[in-house]
Amino acid sequence: MTGNCPRRDFLKYSGLLMGVGAASPTVASSTPGAAISPGSSHYHQGLGDPKQMTIQQVIDLIIGKCVAKPLQQTVDTFKTGDPSQSVRGIVTTFLATCEVIEKTVQLGANLIITHEPTFYSHLDQTDWLKNDPVYVSKRRLIDEHDIVIWRFHDYWHMHKPDGIMTGVLKELGWESYADPGRNNLCTVPAMPLRNLVALLKEKLGAKSVQVVGDVEMQCRRVAFLVGAAGGRMQMLSLASPDVDVVVVGEINEWETSEYARDAVRQKKNKALIILGHANSEEPGMKYLAEWLRPMFPAIGITFVPAGDPFRLM
Amino acid sequence: MTGNCPRRDFLKYSGLLMGVGAASPTVASSTPGAAISPGSSHYHQGLGDPKQMTIQQVIDLIIGKCVAKPLQQTVDTFKTGDPSQSVRGIVTTFLATCEVIEKTVQLGANLIITHEPTFYSHLDQTDWLKNDPVYVSKRRLIDEHDIVIWRFHDYWHMHKPDGIMTGVLKELGWESYADPGRNNLCTVPAMPLRNLVALLKEKLGAKSVQVVGDVEMQCRRVAFLVGAAGGRMQMLSLASPDVDVVVVGEINEWETSEYARDAVRQKKNKALIILGHANSEEPGMKYLAEWLRPMFPAIGITFVPAGDPFRLM
Repeated sequence: MTGNCPRRDFLKYSGLLMGVGAASPTVASSTPGAAISPGSSHYHQGLGDPKQMTIQQVIDLIIGKCVAKPLQQTVDTFKTGDPSQSVRGIVTTFLATCEVIEKTVQLGANLIITHEPTFYSHLDQTDWLKNDPVYVSKRRLIDEHDIVIWRFHDYWHMHKPDGIMTGVLKELGWESYADPGRNNLCTVPAMPLRNLVALLKEKLGAKSVQVVGDVEMQCRRVAFLVGAAGGRMQMLSLASPDVDVVVVGEINEWETSEYARDAVRQKKNKALIILGHANSEEPGMKYLAEWLRPMFPAIGITFVPAGDPFRLM
Repeated sequence: MTGNCPRRDFLKYSGLLMGVGAASPTVASSTPGAAISPGSSHYHQGLGDPKQMTIQQVIDLIIGKCVAKPLQQTVDTFKTGDPSQSVRGIVTTFLATCEVIEKTVQLGANLIITHEPTFYSHLDQTDWLKNDPVYVSKRRLIDEHDIVIWRFHDYWHMHKPDGIMTGVLKELGWESYADPGRNNLCTVPAMPLRNLVALLKEKLGAKSVQVVGDVEMQCRRVAFLVGAAGGRMQMLSLASPDVDVVVVGEINEWETSEYARDAVRQKKNKALIILGHANSEEPGMKYLAEWLRPMFPAIGITFVPAGDPFRLM
């Protein structure tokens, strides 16, 4: 961390602060896009003071842990701020809402790693928002504090195993239920759909979920397609003979929910659980903070949940 | 109606039967695609027995009431069955689920007019479903009973005023609140968001809705964007200075809900109510039955609700 933001600034925000690694080895920079793993000797050969590490260098190291070669086309780009500045602290979150940005400022951090877009569309296009009062206010908040927002979506899903799914399994305590080599498919002790729903809600902290299915149906094979995987992928998964239940983030309501409704009417042993996009993926961004700490032990890293946007009424 | 399905067959299904017009004037056919309104003299010059009216002729008359010229590109096409058969009864619904089809068979009807797709995608593509057990069963049910399914989406929304929105206003009893010439924008007696939500739920029979907003916020200007109007349209509507609340069918959860969440955090007087796609549009297909009866007084016309696909848990 730089002198602008001594580490103790992080401690002020104790309600949100999660354990920060104690050791502080020198962390090396990398050339942009280079794949340098923290375990490599290169990583531990320092360029000197870790406080001088730039945000760009942090991101390059993260990308290098996910893929051998950076993608040519990806939404995982900087959305705001100047990544050549020294990193003063990292926040991980499902989505960089205004509230998450305010908390980042309070923490004294200057890098938000968000899974989903900042400006309300997949490509974070802002041309149509130029005079929008909500966008203008959000932009001012970001720019006043020189917050860098980087999206970590494609690479985190491409990580082997999928980083988001790893976080979900950890939150559920289901690591041992997942198929080897296919960690989104779980074999759980047989239980009625009703109990499976209750368990998911409790472990993932979801206030309410949408269900299509007979609540007494026995469930054993549970496929996760977190986020918005698309109707066809969701339906093909539900159709698979070795899947009883598909758990998704969100759907289009003329696609998967209607397929599931017809399957249930036909008395097929199938059910669909819709967690909500945020509920389904935020555990993966909580896990990200855990995953980053050994890579950057000298940097304050905090998971700031965006939370479920909805109130069910 | 034909001898295969005497009108009394409709009465058997009394639980679903809604008032059927008593008068039975002769109804003329039209050439396919021709725009003939029921009020025109052509319409009342018969081709003889209304029982001999084909489904194609029914649909052509409906299209003619919506647009001056049929669309070249539209999803409003026949999805199943042979439209040259005589119409034996019409069912209107939000979506031709297996349950709706079964009820149509019980009614002795052979034409389902559905607002949304039958086969789980906007274009009702079925190539990828050829060996899918849910599709195969649904297809068998349809084909065994020679049910014709026609989608009435684009034309019904293009009708002036929008047929779906007219049905929603009728269900709410809000016809007098709607702006002249823009029936999706209502000025209601000022009330807290909490009360508006309760009122919408009660009138539209929604078990539960998703809300982003301060429940104490005063609401006066309510914009409806039923169905899935798309994020940009939803957000532009919410941004409009003369709109307090936008009521939608469904959203993408990285778009409108996040825009609304930021607006609320910025203390802007904005709120979003997500009814669910079916809850938001089914009243328009209930109204369709009412709208069709004077056009086809000799044909049994029944609204069969698909209902809300979700169980909230």
